[in-house]
Formats: sequence, structure tokens, C-alpha cells
Amino acid sequence: MYQTQMEAARKGIITKEMQAVAQKEYRTPEEIRTLVAKGQVVICANRLHQCVEPNGIGSMLRTKINVNLGVSRDCKDYDAEMQKVMSAVELGAEAIMDLSSHGNTQPFRRKLTAQCPAMIGTVPVYDSVIHYQRDLSELTAKDFIDVVRMHAEDGVDFVTLHCGITRKTIQQIRQHKRKMNLVSRGGSLVFAWMCMTGNENPFYEYFDEILEICRAYDVTISLGDACRPGCLADAGDVCQIEELVRLGELTKRAWAKDVQVMIEGPGHMALDRIAANMQIQQTVCMGAPFYVLGPLVTDIAPGYDHITAAIGGAVAAMHGASFLCYVTPAEHLALPNVEDVRQGIIAAKIAAHAADVAKHLPHAQDMDDAMAEARRTFDWEKQWQCAIDPQTAKSIRAERKPELEESCSMCGKFCAVRSMNKALAGEYIDIL
Amino acid sequence: MYQTQMEAARKGIITKEMQAVAQKEYRTPEEIRTLVAKGQVVICANRLHQCVEPNGIGSMLRTKINVNLGVSRDCKDYDAEMQKVMSAVELGAEAIMDLSSHGNTQPFRRKLTAQCPAMIGTVPVYDSVIHYQRDLSELTAKDFIDVVRMHAEDGVDFVTLHCGITRKTIQQIRQHKRKMNLVSRGGSLVFAWMCMTGNENPFYEYFDEILEICRAYDVTISLGDACRPGCLADAGDVCQIEELVRLGELTKRAWAKDVQVMIEGPGHMALDRIAANMQIQQTVCMGAPFYVLGPLVTDIAPGYDHITAAIGGAVAAMHGASFLCYVTPAEHLALPNVEDVRQGIIAAKIAAHAADVAKHLPHAQDMDDAMAEARRTFDWEKQWQCAIDPQTAKSIRAERKPELEESCSMCGKFCAVRSMNKALAGEYIDIL
Repeated sequence: MYQTQMEAARKGIITKEMQAVAQKEYRTPEEIRTLVAKGQVVICANRLHQCVEPNGIGSMLRTKINVNLGVSRDCKDYDAEMQKVMSAVELGAEAIMDLSSHGNTQPFRRKLTAQCPAMIGTVPVYDSVIHYQRDLSELTAKDFIDVVRMHAEDGVDFVTLHCGITRKTIQQIRQHKRKMNLVSRGGSLVFAWMCMTGNENPFYEYFDEILEICRAYDVTISLGDACRPGCLADAGDVCQIEELVRLGELTKRAWAKDVQVMIEGPGHMALDRIAANMQIQQTVCMGAPFYVLGPLVTDIAPGYDHITAAIGGAVAAMHGASFLCYVTPAEHLALPNVEDVRQGIIAAKIAAHAADVAKHLPHAQDMDDAMAEARRTFDWEKQWQCAIDPQTAKSIRAERKPELEESCSMCGKFCAVRSMNKALAGEYIDIL
Repeated sequence: MYQTQMEAARKGIITKEMQAVAQKEYRTPEEIRTLVAKGQVVICANRLHQCVEPNGIGSMLRTKINVNLGVSRDCKDYDAEMQKVMSAVELGAEAIMDLSSHGNTQPFRRKLTAQCPAMIGTVPVYDSVIHYQRDLSELTAKDFIDVVRMHAEDGVDFVTLHCGITRKTIQQIRQHKRKMNLVSRGGSLVFAWMCMTGNENPFYEYFDEILEICRAYDVTISLGDACRPGCLADAGDVCQIEELVRLGELTKRAWAKDVQVMIEGPGHMALDRIAANMQIQQTVCMGAPFYVLGPLVTDIAPGYDHITAAIGGAVAAMHGASFLCYVTPAEHLALPNVEDVRQGIIAAKIAAHAADVAKHLPHAQDMDDAMAEARRTFDWEKQWQCAIDPQTAKSIRAERKPELEESCSMCGKFCAVRSMNKALAGEYIDIL
């Protein structure tokens, strides 16, 4: 009856996935159907990922977050990694990108699509090198496409493909003398492969074949931004924008075959440039959902890039980005550990939520309002219930006990809330 | 010859403080003098604070940050607290507010103005209760004013005074049914005192007397916002805005006596309201520097309010705030410990720097550009030199050793920078 959510939407069919999304987002199923038909909302749900809990991604919906995990040389334990995945989902990640880069990656990928309710994404070009255990230059265009097909068959919901760079990009990067060249891992592999083989980008050249694969399984293409700026100085330059233009063209081609598309975005970018960047993406890519990595609003905070990304991500999402890739404190430095992952997720959730409130999404502020009530009434249990991370909040209070239940150890009897409650009740206020 | 920096500026005198500020900010002394004369830049430098390193605060200058410290019931050790102060200064705090709330506060305050090069601020109303060791309701208007004088004589550079609320505010707060009433500690004390005594706000009633004191020592008045919103729901309401209007009136009266003024601002505020709020402050208060606490862009992240404040602070500073009060992860929960203070400072520095870059201040991006170069060339030593917190960055890398010097353990041989350097040099790229 239909191959993809987009095809269904265009045929006027409201799928069960659209219904689920509508309910979560306080919209009517018909509203969601219309947005999916226009490509302004994607529902990443491979037909083979049976246990997926459908989520919509689009600028008018709740901002979603992605967490990168995967088996690596340092962490080869499938079960341990799967536990990380499930706790990321519990902390609120709507998507998991499996960036496994070691050994046989297929069992873990299949485990994910068999058990994990989050959307699963991959970057097939990484896996190509691993899968064939051949060096990059020895891979053929067909090899790359075959890995895309394998991931689709394994039930992956979205794939990042760096389709937007071409041989012209090689000259452009050489001439433009960017400070950071390309910092996209997948993009650099495609670039390097083009340099070594002299061939055109296979993800660009064989885009129609890729569309056939994605259509068959309803895999959403996340059009990777190989030229995403890797430092403030490179942000918004012609390399980035020309690729964006090409991604817009490819979006049209995908939509013509009912294939769902997201566009990936920056990267590193000064705060004053983010709004304009989001606007341009929306016009050039006709409202296709924007998936940003950051943006990091400064380059000088290694160890704290979950914060630089939270600042940029909140502003980006307020101005139209709909999907935030988490960034951990270990970014630029090391493989994130369990605590880094946790910090990264929470920072991304804060950014996403701040943007949802700013966009006045239905019920976005409910929990904030409940928290305010709980604070005024010193209902600490309720405060923990409203908190993004109840455990951490609770333990900070517990380890530094206040003198009074109606205060915290920061202000003690000077607590403004306590003074005001007493003043408004006409009670005497003891401070000393 | 002159009592205050503002008086000097208006008389056409360029003080040594203006010269120092000009040099730090890449401006001419004449530019700084003009801005000080107009009240758009304040240089908080009590005539008795001999060791102060002058800094200018204004929306066209580098964004400054304040750190709250002080002796409390839990921490009565002057030397230990002084060490915290000096390490805050080392981490980049331009101002320290001494919020001491225990015992005899004067020795520590005098120690600060004798030894600390940062601007020193206080909230005299807190100290009134402590100083007289009498309960709030037993203090007289004169008592409050005398404490302001004592702080001025002790060399304090700026004082937060909640001059903008009046008896009318009591009715307004009762009628308006805010979710969080007042959350300003000093503001709530003034409010409670008015309720208990039936008198008018002494900081409003005796404002002229306060101006005489501040003029004599060149103490900058930081006009406190008693009605700053304590939750998203209260942001921008009439209580906040009417107080702001009154603060604008008081600013004019202060300027008429050459007294320097800052205006304090929110608070909790959704991200989409911040720009408008900064604009309104600029017009209503005629460009007087805006000193914000946050703004926190959500209420539901206790344990992570350094992040919610960094998001709001960066956006506020980009839109006109010039001075950020740090917020720690312990906000709303407990007295911050040493690590909380550190996290709060770094988050505030990130926000301030992100805004400075966004405002295109001279040389603001230099360090970011140097970091980008260092990243491209794998010059790790240089990267640590460019980092806001070199120690943390270095230790994250060190504890998770990479396989290659030219990469980190996140990507290993998949490192995009490494691949690009090799590709552009025409070298073979080994990934496996």
C-alpha cells in the first residue's frame, strides 16, 4: 500500500506511526500527515525496526536529541554498550546513532533494532572500512552502496550519508584555506577516498540507487554536512553554504521518490550567526528538518563542550533546528566515558527543553510551572519529580543539609521564599 | 578635583582608571571617557580600594563576570575564603560579591578591599541584620543607611540596593499572585521589613542620602531587582517591569549627582523573551549597564543551573547585558562547594566569551582562531594554552590515551583532521 511514511502521507493515509506522533505532540493526526507529506516532519521508522516507538522530527514539534554510542576498540562488550544505550533512552534520548568502529558490527546493530525503542541511526561509510577490513582506497563505490543496503536490511531508521560533496569540493577546500578543513569524520573519509582514487563521491554519483534502498525499507536519509565548520572562523563560508545548496537539490530528488530526508548542520558557529544559518537552511532545503551537532559557540572550551553546545543548540532549536546531537565534555579530547555520556545527554535535554519553551510548544512549560509551585511551597519531593535529573538534585541537597526544611543551605533563614511566605501570611520573620 | 569617575568624565578628565580600561578593551581613553560620562560604562572603583585593577562594565565592552563568596555559618575561616576569592580571580572573575552572612563581617570585607584586585560588591541589607544582631523588624531606616556608609568606608566598589520597590509593591505582589513572589534575597528582606514595620522602603525614601555616600567614595550603585522573576511564569510581568521603570527614574537621579549606576536583571526567563528584555532595559534605563543573574532558561534543571544560566547569559550578553553573575550547579539546592564555584565560574566565562565573539568585540575571537590552528596541526600544548580550563582538558586526554599522537581516543585513525591533513598533502591514508 505504501513504502514510506512520506508516500503514505501523500496518499492521504494516516499511519499508526503518525497517530503515535500526533498524540505525543498534542497535534491532530491530520496535521502530522500534512507535515510528513511536505517533508517538514520525518518519522524515522525502518519497516524492520519492529520495536521502535515512533517520534516525529520537525521544527514545529518537540526538539529531539541523539546520542552517539557504539562498540569500539576500547569497549567491545556488546552487553555493556547495550546497557549504555538503554540508560541513554531512559535519560530521554529519542535517537541512538551506532558509530561502532571495531570488529563485526552487525550483531550489535541487529541487537539495537531488535530491542531498542529509540530511532537508530548509522554512518555506513565508517562501517565500510570495518566491514570489509580493507583499507579505504581499496573500497569500490559498490562496496559503499552495499553497506548502505546492509544497514537498511538490519533495520536502521536513518543513515548519515555525505552526498553533498563532489570532486569540485577538493579544489574548493584547497583554495579556500579553511582553518579546519573538514571535521566531519564521514565526510573526511569520502574526501580522502576521492583524493586517493580519483573517482567521484559514490554517495553523490549513485544517489538514485541509494534512494531505491531507502525507499524499500523507509530509511530516512540524514544528508551529512561534510563541510560543517570545525571552528568559528570557518562558519558560514562558501564551502558550507555550497554544500547546503547541493543538499537542497538532493532533498528534492529524495522527495520525488517519497524518501524522507533530514539535513545535518553545524558544527562550530558564533552565537550571532546561528539564527541566520537556521533560516537559510529552512529556505534552501524547503523546511526539511535540521539536525545540528552543537553548534559550539566557542572553540576554547575543551572539557566543557557540552555547555558550548547547549548554548548553541538551544538557540539553534529556537530558530528552527529540530534535532540536536549531544556533545559530551570529552569532545575534541577523548572517547567519552559513562559520566561524559550522562553529562552530554542532560545538557542536550536542557537545550532542547529551553527551545521548546521558547517556541511555545503545547504543554512545554507545564513542568517548569509545576516546579515553581513546588519551590514556593517547599515541596521537595515534587521538586525532584519535576527535575530533569532528580538523583543529582536530591543528592546535592542531601549532602549539605539545611538548618531548616523551609530553605536550603545556600540562604538558610535568609531564604527569600521563606521570608515572602511569612510576610504575605502576616507572620513574624525571624532571620537571626 | 572630582569625586567620581562619572564626574571626572563629565569634566573632560581622563582618569588613570579610564586609561587602564581603554587599554584592556582596545579603545581610546577618550571613547571610554565619553561612555562613562553618559553612564553607559561604569568603572567600579571605590577611592579607598587602592589595589583594584580597574575594569569597565558596559554593553560595548568585554562581558564581565561576578562570583558570589563570603563567610557563612558553614565556612567561617577567613583565610580559606580568601583563597577561594583569589582562585576565582585567577579563573577570570572580574568581580567578587561578598555575601558574608555570619559573625563580624567587617574584617573579611576589609581584607578583600586591601588585597583583592577584583571589583568588590556587597548587599548591605544582608549585613544589616548580621551587623546589629537584631531581628529585621527592629532595625530602623537609619540603621540600613549607616551600613551602606560603613561598606563605602570599607572600600566596597559597588553595592546592591533594592531601591525600586515601594509600599505599592506589597499590594501588587498580593494581587498579582506570582508563582514565586520575590526570590531576591535582599528584596525579600526589604519587603518583609516594610510589611512588619508599615514603613516605606528606606532605600527608596532616603535615596538622596545614599547618593551622597556613594558620591563621596565613588561607590557604584547596583540597583537591585527585587521583583526579578524566580520562574519562567513570572518573567516579564508587570511587577518586574514597573520596578524596572522605577530603576530608570532612580538612575536619572543618581546621574544628576554623578553617581555611577548599574541595573540588575533577571532571573528566570524563557529564551525567546531575553532579547526583548535586554532592549527594554536599555531604553528604560538609558543604556545603564545591565547586570544579570542568569537568566535561567528553564526551571527544571536543578543541579545544572550553571548550564541553564550559561544559555541565558550568553544570549543576554549578546543582546546588551554587560555583566553576568555566575550561577553554580548548587543553585536552588545548597551552598556551593569549591567544585561548584569552579563549575559556575567556567560556565559564566564561556557564556561571556561566546557573547563577546558574537558582538564582534576587538580581538574577541583571537584565541578561538589560535585554537583552531592548534587543532589542525595537532599542537596539543598550544591547545592547552588556548583553553579556558587547560587542566581539565589536559587530564581528560591524558586519562584516555589515544593510539596516535595525531588523534584522540574518540576517533583514533578515523580522525577527520588527520585524514584531511594526509589527503591534502597527497599522502596515503591508513584507517585500519
